[in-house]
This record gives sequence, structure tokens and C-alpha cells, in this order.
Amino acid sequence: MSTVARRAEATPDIGKAMYRLIERLYPICRSITGDGVRESLAIVGEHVPLQVHEVPSGTPVLDWTVPKEWNIRDAYVKDASGRRVIDFRRSNLHVLGYSAPVRRRMSLAELRPHLHTLPDYPDWIPYRTSYYKENWGFCLAHKALRALPDGEYEVVIDSTLTDGALTYGELVLPGEQQEEFLLSCHVCHPSMCNDNLSGIALATFLATRLAARRARRYTYRFLFIPGTIGSITWLARNEQAAKRVRHGLVINCVGDGGPFNYKRSRRGDAEIDRAAANVLRHCGRAHDVFDFFPYGYDERQYCSPGFDMPVGALSRTTHGHYPQYHTSADDLGFVRPEPLAESLDLYETVIDAIEQNRRYRNLNPKGEPQLGRRGLYGAFGAGMRSEDEMAVFWVLNLSDGEHDLLGVAERAEMPFATIARAAAALRDTGLLAAE
Amino acid sequence: MSTVARRAEATPDIGKAMYRLIERLYPICRSITGDGVRESLAIVGEHVPLQVHEVPSGTPVLDWTVPKEWNIRDAYVKDASGRRVIDFRRSNLHVLGYSAPVRRRMSLAELRPHLHTLPDYPDWIPYRTSYYKENWGFCLAHKALRALPDGEYEVVIDSTLTDGALTYGELVLPGEQQEEFLLSCHVCHPSMCNDNLSGIALATFLATRLAARRARRYTYRFLFIPGTIGSITWLARNEQAAKRVRHGLVINCVGDGGPFNYKRSRRGDAEIDRAAANVLRHCGRAHDVFDFFPYGYDERQYCSPGFDMPVGALSRTTHGHYPQYHTSADDLGFVRPEPLAESLDLYETVIDAIEQNRRYRNLNPKGEPQLGRRGLYGAFGAGMRSEDEMAVFWVLNLSDGEHDLLGVAERAEMPFATIARAAAALRDTGLLAAE
Amino acid sequence: MSTVARRAEATPDIGKAMYRLIERLYPICRSITGDGVRESLAIVGEHVPLQVHEVPSGTPVLDWTVPKEWNIRDAYVKDASGRRVIDFRRSNLHVLGYSAPVRRRMSLAELRPHLHTLPDYPDWIPYRTSYYKENWGFCLAHKALRALPDGEYEVVIDSTLTDGALTYGELVLPGEQQEEFLLSCHVCHPSMCNDNLSGIALATFLATRLAARRARRYTYRFLFIPGTIGSITWLARNEQAAKRVRHGLVINCVGDGGPFNYKRSRRGDAEIDRAAANVLRHCGRAHDVFDFFPYGYDERQYCSPGFDMPVGALSRTTHGHYPQYHTSADDLGFVRPEPLAESLDLYETVIDAIEQNRRYRNLNPKGEPQLGRRGLYGAFGAGMRSEDEMAVFWVLNLSDGEHDLLGVAERAEMPFATIARAAAALRDTGLLAAE
Repeated sequence: MSTVARRAEATPDIGKAMYRLIERLYPICRSITGDGVRESLAIVGEHVPLQVHEVPSGTPVLDWTVPKEWNIRDAYVKDASGRRVIDFRRSNLHVLGYSAPVRRRMSLAELRPHLHTLPDYPDWIPYRTSYYKENWGFCLAHKALRALPDGEYEVVIDSTLTDGALTYGELVLPGEQQEEFLLSCHVCHPSMCNDNLSGIALATFLATRLAARRARRYTYRFLFIPGTIGSITWLARNEQAAKRVRHGLVINCVGDGGPFNYKRSRRGDAEIDRAAANVLRHCGRAHDVFDFFPYGYDERQYCSPGFDMPVGALSRTTHGHYPQYHTSADDLGFVRPEPLAESLDLYETVIDAIEQNRRYRNLNPKGEPQLGRRGLYGAFGAGMRSEDEMAVFWVLNLSDGEHDLLGVAERAEMPFATIARAAAALRDTGLLAAE
Repeated sequence: MSTVARRAEATPDIGKAMYRLIERLYPICRSITGDGVRESLAIVGEHVPLQVHEVPSGTPVLDWTVPKEWNIRDAYVKDASGRRVIDFRRSNLHVLGYSAPVRRRMSLAELRPHLHTLPDYPDWIPYRTSYYKENWGFCLAHKALRALPDGEYEVVIDSTLTDGALTYGELVLPGEQQEEFLLSCHVCHPSMCNDNLSGIALATFLATRLAARRARRYTYRFLFIPGTIGSITWLARNEQAAKRVRHGLVINCVGDGGPFNYKRSRRGDAEIDRAAANVLRHCGRAHDVFDFFPYGYDERQYCSPGFDMPVGALSRTTHGHYPQYHTSADDLGFVRPEPLAESLDLYETVIDAIEQNRRYRNLNPKGEPQLGRRGLYGAFGAGMRSEDEMAVFWVLNLSDGEHDLLGVAERAEMPFATIARAAAALRDTGLLAAE
Repeated sequence: MSTVARRAEATPDIGKAMYRLIERLYPICRSITGDGVRESLAIVGEHVPLQVHEVPSGTPVLDWTVPKEWNIRDAYVKDASGRRVIDFRRSNLHVLGYSAPVRRRMSLAELRPHLHTLPDYPDWIPYRTSYYKENWGFCLAHKALRALPDGEYEVVIDSTLTDGALTYGELVLPGEQQEEFLLSCHVCHPSMCNDNLSGIALATFLATRLAARRARRYTYRFLFIPGTIGSITWLARNEQAAKRVRHGLVINCVGDGGPFNYKRSRRGDAEIDRAAANVLRHCGRAHDVFDFFPYGYDERQYCSPGFDMPVGALSRTTHGHYPQYHTSADDLGFVRPEPLAESLDLYETVIDAIEQNRRYRNLNPKGEPQLGRRGLYGAFGAGMRSEDEMAVFWVLNLSDGEHDLLGVAERAEMPFATIARAAAALRDTGLLAAE
């Protein structure tokens, strides 16, 4: 049984707890600014001691400017009979994100350019935004659009777009070292579950678990930020902290039942890339590992050439590879407790590899040490060796000051955890010393 | 539609013009020296201002010596009835190239060791030469050989092998830089079309096109030379110019309908190797790219270890991979205007990549710049990006002083032209500066 | 026909001689110490002048200590009727190697924990040892175990485990250089043929052949040692000699009819690794080449990180990949003269590659030299080249001071012997000089 599966059995209820957090966050209308983000961070803050930052509209952040804050109370399109044919109260996806306020009567022909649908999925509401170009609009099921008769409609978007702030949450868990492990999720999507509530839930429960550890080698920094403008804002305000980040992962799309996907950092051979590749290779689940490309989530910013941080992205089905992506069908039925728990365990397994990865030196490098008298070797010399015995040989052979344990695991084609266990046993017998 | 296909449509008649040049050159009896080369260069000189060099017989060139000049007026074998059973006037392939003069009567048995045929292709005349070992002979269809009755024959080769000169043509198109792009074709084959008249035609029309350009970054040097001894002669006389060659291609076998083939330079990773590989990968046609080997055409000399020039070879079906190679069947029916035009366009696409390849620096390397306000990004942030938008992201992400545009295109797995277009747009908005 | 096949035909009887040596060694009860080793080395010494070393029990060797010497005269289990139901005289595999002396009567239930069988191969006796943990036991066919009735048995192992010595054989054939080629086989297995008598036979006859050579570039050192403790003992006593080893091979499992297998040295790119890979690639037999792993035979010690010697292992079917491995079925029927001779020839081909591998410099590096006037090139310039002519071009092109002949062979994808032949011809014409 793989490490991941073993962990998942040990924590049967954590998936349900993650799912419940998603259920609670689901109805809130989030965007890149506004009260929806604040309300969501407050709920996360019930689990972990989140520090909430407010950055005023108009603040220059790198090449960008913090935008006006957007809030919305209600929005609808009423037909001639006064019936709400499109109703924000039924789904916050009905409103184009960052829609400017509107209160007008107009014909269907006038309204139509402001209506967005998915003809290929006529039952689903698409998710659309217009953050940086002032606009307004409604999103609806294509089937509903086709049912609208000609005539006059009352169009109301009761929103505000005013100077305010961009809100994000931050949590730092100090470790033995000042060097940091960054874990970043975005918090700007309204009622959709895999993108991005699953990421928020995973970050929250991963933080809970790491906070409960007696010792942490690295300092862990969790960011709950609006996508793109949030990471840009954080980077603008934290250039020094960014330099301390030695490993990082962007978290999203971790609640569906699909295979695992790891997208390497821009560097391609960072320790996090090697750790994730090793863990996935031996996780016993379908998975893929692929090179960085400059599109996706906030790894785009962390891996911009001026920062070039060692930050990868670990997901299940990746954005754009499931039809429900950015639609109303990414709902509470699309994510499930079991894959959420499994994703959490996978993240923790990767983190354990990073925590335990070290360069050791074989203190008895000439010939093999006699393992038998140290209790590290089975009786009856002949026959094949167990995986643990092979791991002992690999660690001894490659602990030459050149290979870290991940490098040993790679060359041995064995799970990092097995190699780390062998290294611990060897260290305990005095055959190995940390460099 | 690929760049190559787009170009080919834009120039429907150039293939016909190339073919007409081949038709005109076809009847001439060329060899590594002699009037056939002079006559051929004079015809090329009607299209481009060719400088013709004459290097005297006996001149030492590297490890070689310029051979005697060979010319031929007539040659035949007459049977007892006085009928020409082998007749140079019907095909200049009938004479072993560089045959010494002969005027004798002999039996078929005496003649036979001097007769060359292709038993596997009994209708075709083979192409054979004996440049450096004095000899004489005739080549003929195997079927014709079998039809010869025993008896006495009159054997005449009315050739001269005397001190004279080796003739080659050269054309230099100056560019902004003294660094050169070498384009080399050989001019020593008698009546065969793919090898090598197609190469002469391509070089001629490529020179015409490049000469018509308003600006050229590199200086272009075209060589029309006899194979092997011609490139050796040119190298012996131009060691300094050889050092200025930064890119080069040997042109041949570009008129048949087969897939494209690129043979890398000896270096294997020269800029021309990378450019050709990228263009072929995205050309929308069957193709292959393979490593250098020390056999073939004049790349053998350019890539000898003492020069090691970055010169590859770009062809369609390569020498020896079509049965018509070096036979009378490599005739005017074997090459066609469309593949000729397509090959020309492919060469120009490779040259454009070399001309436009540069190392840029992202002037806003921290985070992504806000592309929307610069008009470089579609409205409505969600959904998949167009190839052009992705190219913009790739150029921004990799313009770190390490990657040239070819390197960006390689990592993005995109056509160089798309990447170059994105780089131009970014440079125009001031986000990118040439290194 | 491959080089290996050609050699094998030239030496039809050597396989039979190797087999006869195996037949003679087969009955002897060898272990890691004791008279069985001495007797075996004496027989080898009839073929080659072996120096025999005796290292006293208790001598510290690296992390180990030379163990007590083990000798055995007889061993059996007798049933109530006095019949030997297990009898050392019928097979020395019946006794657990290094069994302490025993002389007791006991029930089958008491005896059973000391009995070792192979349930999956009920007719075969397994090979088991307990060198470093004092123990006693018997090995037998599972079928024989099942036939034993309950009742009392007389159990006798007439062995001695006393201070004595570890014995090993060594043979040095001096060469032009002090740098060494190490050839190591183990001599500690009782009646089994592929593992390890085939290795002893190959080492013996390879030494005979190398001793008969007029010239040797390298000094050859053959070791006939007990596995693990023997190489550790030799390394402990010969640290300076170990540093002079520039190439090495561990010999074993070379008598079965399976494909060749080469296990790279820990370095992975040592000259021996490249030579073995080239020879196998062109040997015309099924084969595999794989990376080092820290398990197997004495390469484990030679490739420990404190020595990191360039020593690979060249076998036929590797240990553990045939069911007969470490059982009584690895008998005189399992090995055959033809594969033994073929293995010997393969070893010699690898050694020849190492002996002849050199870095040459093309003395005429600018352009190709004119091969025709030096007799290195066929008449009639057109047509495809023979393999030997291509080898000449490759050697000329790559003899730039960067490539050794193995490197030329690798890039040319040609057998080393062909490349070496071309280099010799070029050297003889003065076109090439050894670096």
C-alpha cells in the first residue's frame, strides 16, 4: 500500500471536514476584492489564526494598481410581468464579475450583447469577469436565453465599484529555519467548488496539520489571495520574504476524482520539483508531471523571471481540462470528501520529503560496512533482499556528499519515504552523518 | 496554414521560373572543370551578378591540387555497320566523367571492362566519374549492353584533359553585419535535375529574393562550385571569410516531391541547426532532422575539424535514398515546380528565423506586466488563450538574458514566427529590449 | 559476422577446456575459507602461476574481521533405521554453509527449524549459508522433506570452525603501464556451476590468453577471492593498487546460454562502461546494459563510495534471474562449452577495445585529405561507401583532440574494431597522430 493510501485510511474524517468547509464557503459571492473575500477569510480564520491584510485601492503594485473594490447586493433581469428571469439570488454566477451598477429598461436586442452563455453546455451558467475594463453583464444557461421572449426587460445590477481595498489572508508557521515553504491558494471565485474552494479547504487543513507538528524545519507561509492581482500585491509588498522562499506550491483543483498533476516550477529541477515527482511516481495513483508553462494560476507570478521562485503547482484535474471548469457545474456535487483527503495526504507526503531531504555522508565509505552485526541485515546471506535492505545499500553507496536523499531515491527508483527510513536507521547506528 | 504553405501560395509562379532555369541548364555537360561549368554560370549570371573565379590547374589547395581541365566535344561507340550504339550526343551521361581521349577499334570483350550499367534498373544510364585516376569509359542502359552483338567496335572519346582552370561562381550580398550566412550548391553534375540542378535553381532564386530585400542583418555569400574540389578550393583561398561564417546551408536535392530532410552541422547545436529544426517541426510537411555524418556533399569540407563551420544541409529526399539518384532517370520529369517553390519558401523561412533571432530582456521582469492596458490581451479574463497570447506570455517569461527567441520557441513548442511576432509586439510597447 | 562470432570459430576447443576445468572443480566443497578454496586455487594454479595469500582469522579488514576458518569432513541425518536420509557425501549443498559442529539425536519437530527447502522447486536443494551468525542446518529437496516420517533422527555435522585463514589467489601480468585492469571472480561457492565455477574458468583462460600476448598496454590483475569478505580483504591490504585500477570487470554467470548483461560501474561513464556498451551493441547477440545498483557481486565493494573504482560486471543471465540460481540445479548440465567460449571471446573483445582506445589528432584537419592517392578510397567516386571507408571519414572528422576512438565509434554507431582498424590505416599513412 502506498504512503498516500496509508495516510488516507488513518484520517477517514478529514475529507468530510474539508467538504463541510467548502459547503459553508460555497454560497458567498467572492471576487478579487470586496466583502465576499472578507467573509470567506473570516470562516477560514475559525480554523487557523489568519492575519488579514487590506491594501487600499490605487496602491501601485509592481506593474499594476490595486483596483477599486467591488461589492454587490442584488442583480436581476425582470420580464414585462415582473418575474426575475435572471436572478443573482439564485446563483451569484449570473452576474459578470466586477459589473458596474446598472438600472435600466431595455429591449432584449439591447440586452443581448451583455448576456453570456455556453451553447455547448446549454444547462450551465458560465463564469465571466471584467476586472480591468469597466463593463456589465449577465451569465445564464443557454437554454434559458433561448426561452426569453422579445419585449422590454428591467435590468438591475445593484453593485458598487468604489475606492476600498484588496483583502488577503496570510498565515506564517515559524520553523527551525528562516527559509520558507510557500503555499498559495486563490480566494476570488464565487460559487464554484473545485476551482477554487477545494484549494482553500486543502490549504486550511494542511495549515492545521502543520501547526500541530512539534517541529518544522522550514517556516511555512500560507497565502489566501485573489488570483493574479493578489500574488502581485503580495510580491510587491514582500520582496524580501519572496527571496527566502526555498520551496512552494500553488494549490487548486484538488477535490475532483481525477489523476494527480504536477506542473514544475520554471526552474524545472528545483527540490520541490524533484520531491513532487518522486512522491507522484510512487503514489499508486494515475498522475502526470509536466514542465512549467507561463499560464495557469499564481505560479505565473511567482515564476516570473524577476522572481523565478521554486514554486510548482500540484492539482488533480487541471484547469481547462474538465468541462465543468468555470461554470455552475463545478458545484458541490463535483467535489467529494475522499479525493479531498487524498490530495491533502499527498501534499503532506511531498512536504515530508522536503522536510526530511538532506545530504548525508557515509562515515564508512570504503567497502560495505558489516550490517549484520548492526542488526540491519537479514540472516541467511543468500536470496533477494527486501526493499528496506536495498534502500540501506543505496543510501550507503550514494551518501558521498554529492547526493541528497531525493537524489538517492531517484537513482534507486524508490519512494523517498523508504530511502529516508533507511537513512534514519543508518544514522542511528552511527554509519551516516548529516552534511 | 503553415508559414511555408502561406508563402508558396503567394508566389505561384516562382516554381515555374525555377523549373525553366533547370530546363535550360539540363543539356549542358558539366563536370568539376571545363566549359560546361562556365556556360552554366553564365546562365545563372543572367539572374544574379555572379563573380566567376578561375583557379589554374596545378594550384595547391589544402591537401589537394586543382586538376587538369576536362572538355569533351563528342564520344561514341560505333558497331561494324557504322551505327552509333552509344552516343554522347543523345546523353552526356554516356561518357565516364573525366574520360581521357580514346580513338580505337576493339572487340566487345576488350570494350566490356569500360562499360558501366545498372543491372537492377536496365533502362537507366548510370552516372560515373573518374576524376583523380586517369581512365575512360562509357555508361549505358543494361538493356542496351545486353543487345550488343559480339564483333568489332569503333570507340571514340573526343575529349581533352589539359592544363586549364577550375571555375566557380560567387555572389556576396552585403548585410548590416560582416558575419556571413553561407549558401553553397554544387555545379559539377551533367544532365541530372534533382542532383544538382535543383540546388542551382534554388540558390539562384533565393539570391534574387535576398538581393531584393531592403535590409539584411547578415552578409550572404552564395557559392556555385564543383563538389568537393570546389569547396576545398574556396576554403583554401578564403580562410578568413570562412571564419566569418556564422550560419550556412548546403543546397541540393530540393526539387522532388519527397519529405524535407535536415542534416545538422557537425556542432549539432548551432543556431542554424536550431532554426532549421524549429521551422521543419512546424512546417506542416513530413520531415526528418538527423545528426551530422562525415559523408554527403560539401558540408563534409565545411565541417571538417579544422574549419568546423556551422553549416547544415537542407534537402528533400537525400542523396542515395531515391533510385533515380545518379542516373539518367533523375531527369526533367523527376523535379516539379511546386516542390521547388516550396523548398525555396522553406529556405527563406529558415533564413528569416536566423535574421530575426535575438536575445531580448523583459524590462518588467517582476510579475506579469498588465497586458490589458497595453492592448495585448483579450477581454473577459476567463477561458483559453489564443496562440498569440500564449506566445506573449512565453516571450515575457523567458526573456531573461538566457534565452534567445529560438530558445523561447523551442521551450514553448511554437513556430519561431509566432514567437517573433509576439516579441515585436512587446518591443513596440516598450516591455522588451534587445540585449 | 560479428567479431565475437569470428573469434569463437577460431577457438573451437577452448570452451571444452573451460568446461573440463569446471568439471574438475565441481565436487569440491568451497566456502569463504577453508581447504576447499585452497584445493580449487591449486587446480587453477596448474593453468596460470597463481600467488596464493593466507590472511589469518581475526585480521581487521576495513569494517570487517577475517572470520574463523571453516572445514567439514562429513554431515548427515540418519533415521531410526540408520539410513542417511540427508547425506553430505551425495551433495555438499546439503549442509548450511559455515554450520557449527553438531552431534545430537532429536525428533523431526526439533530438527525442522534447521531444514531449508524450496517448496516451489521440490526436486532441488537450495544453497544457504550463515557466515557471520553461528548456526547449523541442512538443505534438502522439498520432496525429500515431505517424505521424512516423524521419529528420532541422528544429526551429525562433522565440521570445524577455528582460527585459521582466509585464502585467495592473485595473478599479475605486467604491462607497459602501471595502470591496472582488474579482473575479479569469486571462489566461495560449493557445487554450483554458473555461479561461480564459470567465472573461475573464464578468469583462468582469459589470464592464459593475456599472458601469451607479446604486449599488454595495461597491467592485468586477476583476483580469485571469496565473495564480499575476499574483496574487502584485498581492498584493505591493497589501497594503493586499488588506486591504480583504471578499468575492471567482475566475472560471473558466464556459462549459460542466455543473453549478455553488462552492469555499469557506479561512475556510469567510465571507459570500461563505454567499451562494454559498444562491444555488446555490435556483438550480434541479445544483450542488455544497465546502470549500477549496490547489490550483486564484488562490484559492490569496488564501487563503494570510498573506492568508486571503474569496475563493471559482465555476465550472461544475471544472478537471481534464473530459477536454478543458488540451487543444486545450477549443475554441470546448466553450463555448456559454447557459451563459455563465447563469453571468453566477448571479454577479450572488450579488453581489446580498452587496449586500443586512444585519442588521435587529424594532422590534416582542414578539409578532407585526398584519400585516393593514399590508397584509402575506392575508385569511381559515386555510389555508397563501404563500412571501412565510412570509418575512415569518421575517424578523420572526429580526431580533433576531443574524441577518443570509443567516442568516434559511439557517434558513428559502428563497432570499435572497425573504427580502430580505420585509425590504424590512417596512422600508417601519416594522417593521424596519437595525442
